Amino acid sequence: MELIKQVERYTGASVEKFYKRTLFRSDTMLLGLNCLEPGQVQKPHEHANRDKFYYVVEGSGRFWLSDQHIEATVGGVVWAPAGVVHGVANESDSRLTLLVGIAPAP
Amino acid sequence: MELIKQVERYTGASVEKFYKRTLFRSDTMLLGLNCLEPGQVQKPHEHANRDKFYYVVEGSGRFWLSDQHIEATVGGVVWAPAGVVHGVANESDSRLTLLVGIAPAP
Repeated sequence: MELIKQVERYTGASVEKFYKRTLFRSDTMLLGLNCLEPGQVQKPHEHANRDKFYYVVEGSGRFWLSDQHIEATVGGVVWAPAGVVHGVANESDSRLTLLVGIAPAP
Repeated sequence: MELIKQVERYTGASVEKFYKRTLFRSDTMLLGLNCLEPGQVQKPHEHANRDKFYYVVEGSGRFWLSDQHIEATVGGVVWAPAGVVHGVANESDSRLTLLVGIAPAP
């Protein structure tokens, strides 16, 4: 098993929906990438028993977090605790790449 | 509780040891920063029941992972599963900033 992965090699685009790629996975944690092209949206949703974070690797996004609406750019870490409705929209003109972790893994 | 944090605002240096800062924490996951100044080392260690990742935000580091010795730079994701000895040395001439996640939280 490869224990190091370079993010740029795992990014991509999906036409219908945003792009998802798993990097690493165990019972305790799922670590992956979400890539949203301009105009794409990850609809607000929640996970009852899982905490989640997003780290903005590239681009910028507008996040929903409960009743907040927050802009995040490169270097931003967004925390979506269990039960908090969260989602993100790419309203910019370039790709938004997010490192995403969910614990425990779905 | 603030649900978004900008990494640059939470970096820092520690003279004796490397710098550690928690960003977010729940039972399922601890998310924080490790900053290593040039020459600093996080000694190889292991967590029996916790999986861990490092994401290189800034700089470059030389990681120990079991019997491997791997160089990682910005954009590199390093996975240290439970029971695998891991550590990192900053042999460069600038700060190494790592986003670190541990699940479940210690």
